[in-house]
Amino acid sequence: VSLERAFPLEPPPARPHDDEDVVIATLLRARGADGSARDHEGWVDAGDDAAVVDHGLAVTVDALVEGVHFDRRLSPEDVGYKTLAVSVSDLAAVGARPSWAVLALALPASDPAWVDGFARGLADACARWGVRLVGGDTVRTPGPRTASLTLGGTCVAAPRRRSGARPGDDLWVTGTLGLASAGWRLDAPPAAALAALRRPDPPLAFALDLALDGLATAGMDLSDGLARDLPRLCAASRVGAVVDADALPGDPCLGSDAVDHQLRGGEDFQLLFTAPPGHADALRALAARHGVRLTRVGRIEPGDAPRLAQGSWPTPAWAHFAVDPGGAA
Amino acid sequence: VSLERAFPLEPPPARPHDDEDVVIATLLRARGADGSARDHEGWVDAGDDAAVVDHGLAVTVDALVEGVHFDRRLSPEDVGYKTLAVSVSDLAAVGARPSWAVLALALPASDPAWVDGFARGLADACARWGVRLVGGDTVRTPGPRTASLTLGGTCVAAPRRRSGARPGDDLWVTGTLGLASAGWRLDAPPAAALAALRRPDPPLAFALDLALDGLATAGMDLSDGLARDLPRLCAASRVGAVVDADALPGDPCLGSDAVDHQLRGGEDFQLLFTAPPGHADALRALAARHGVRLTRVGRIEPGDAPRLAQGSWPTPAWAHFAVDPGGAA
Repeated sequence: VSLERAFPLEPPPARPHDDEDVVIATLLRARGADGSARDHEGWVDAGDDAAVVDHGLAVTVDALVEGVHFDRRLSPEDVGYKTLAVSVSDLAAVGARPSWAVLALALPASDPAWVDGFARGLADACARWGVRLVGGDTVRTPGPRTASLTLGGTCVAAPRRRSGARPGDDLWVTGTLGLASAGWRLDAPPAAALAALRRPDPPLAFALDLALDGLATAGMDLSDGLARDLPRLCAASRVGAVVDADALPGDPCLGSDAVDHQLRGGEDFQLLFTAPPGHADALRALAARHGVRLTRVGRIEPGDAPRLAQGSWPTPAWAHFAVDPGGAA
Repeated sequence: VSLERAFPLEPPPARPHDDEDVVIATLLRARGADGSARDHEGWVDAGDDAAVVDHGLAVTVDALVEGVHFDRRLSPEDVGYKTLAVSVSDLAAVGARPSWAVLALALPASDPAWVDGFARGLADACARWGVRLVGGDTVRTPGPRTASLTLGGTCVAAPRRRSGARPGDDLWVTGTLGLASAGWRLDAPPAAALAALRRPDPPLAFALDLALDGLATAGMDLSDGLARDLPRLCAASRVGAVVDADALPGDPCLGSDAVDHQLRGGEDFQLLFTAPPGHADALRALAARHGVRLTRVGRIEPGDAPRLAQGSWPTPAWAHFAVDPGGAA
């Protein structure tokens, strides 16, 4: 996997939260300069939702920081559960069955009650998705609680990547969009929104069967909102896309800002994928078998970026990386 | 691997830095209660330096927190290098060749110069040990810089564990002990001490050949100091040990507190292992071939804890986990 293919270059960042892309680019640039001539044929790395190395082993890492990725709206149990769930979403994206996890936990103080709740939530999630926690590192920090979980699993078929979409493909999403966004942003979020925020529900079983059946041409998980994630898929596949905002799967509880939550929110942890139009019936049947809501939201077209059928593409709002630097130590 | 075998129970912690053991025990207890009946035959997990799962895949994670694990004595390059080196030490301990890494990086503010240095140091370390950085997650934190790296690799033979030591075995260590401790604790550390602190040098090639040759009965890496680490090996193997403090490999630059640095320091990132006395010549020959300093520091005996030939076992001093909770937010 070449660097260029692995990490499609995007325009230089204009907004602070795009620091993430700069950091990743810096790490990869340094890596590229190491002169190493090792053969990594068949490996997939930075630029997709999970890396894929030997034996179809898929690996992903996610860090959750208190005050950035979670706050008092999440119980310790929720945080433990979500720490795994967000990574399950990444493996689902590439079509890998989760197997083991290691955890790095940085804690500011002795806090047995929090750890106990976190451990129970994590164990619940592990039981649900068949994951075994095999190791970890626990360290003290003068900062906020930070959980970094690495999840490993095995691809059930060739890895599903962001780069395979072709003009004419349909664009599909699973589940309901915007609920977690409403959970974050509303003053008094409805129960469904809080549930989505606290207990992400990535469609793993559907995603694995989708990979086995070879029905999709490209895919990724929706973690930062369609407005930010779809451009990444388009860049990786070197295509454009048109999205029908009226077709986005919603919920009455999203209220009058529904489209904003659906497009510019984040943390949906649903699957965004592309497939030839001829696969539509098979896809609907597969989704029905799994009890998964499946919605065609647009189609791939020539170009290099997505657009809305209703107008210009929205600015992304979700910014995991957007803590006011002025507020930092 | 049963929980009991995987995580040898130790006495309840008396000191704050033993919180780490409590956290790990809590996580494993919760995991044990999940009712999962999956088969993990052949897996090695929490309680050894790295977990070993399918295909002899060894995995380890380590987190480095600014102000706890590094400070201004380390340049950004050093931090990047050390982030990988400490995990290479874990894989060396179990006899696994490093292959890929994923990184979770939490940063308090946009800081291109720091990231650039970190990336260069990490790339240097990756080139040295043949590791490819395949993915990561970069997040903003209101706390200190925190790097959590997960390293994967492949066991070259049956995993070397902490649990195989038998009475009568010799106890060996590679390298020099106490240098990094002197680097941390001296006001004006000598160059060799600073180098050890900044650029850990785990004896990977020796450790792999040692595994291939099947010469050791048990092993672990020395990360928290012999005073803290050897009791763990003894507990895992259900044996005692006697250590000759005068035999510990030192350096003139350690000065008058040499034995304290060697025993109660930490961050040696050397290999501690046991082997039948009949292997001594083969071990010395192997070490000579690798240019590795190898020292017999004691022997395994019946019992359940180590002792010094010169007197009682020292209290551990090294405490990764010991930030004053009163100082935390």
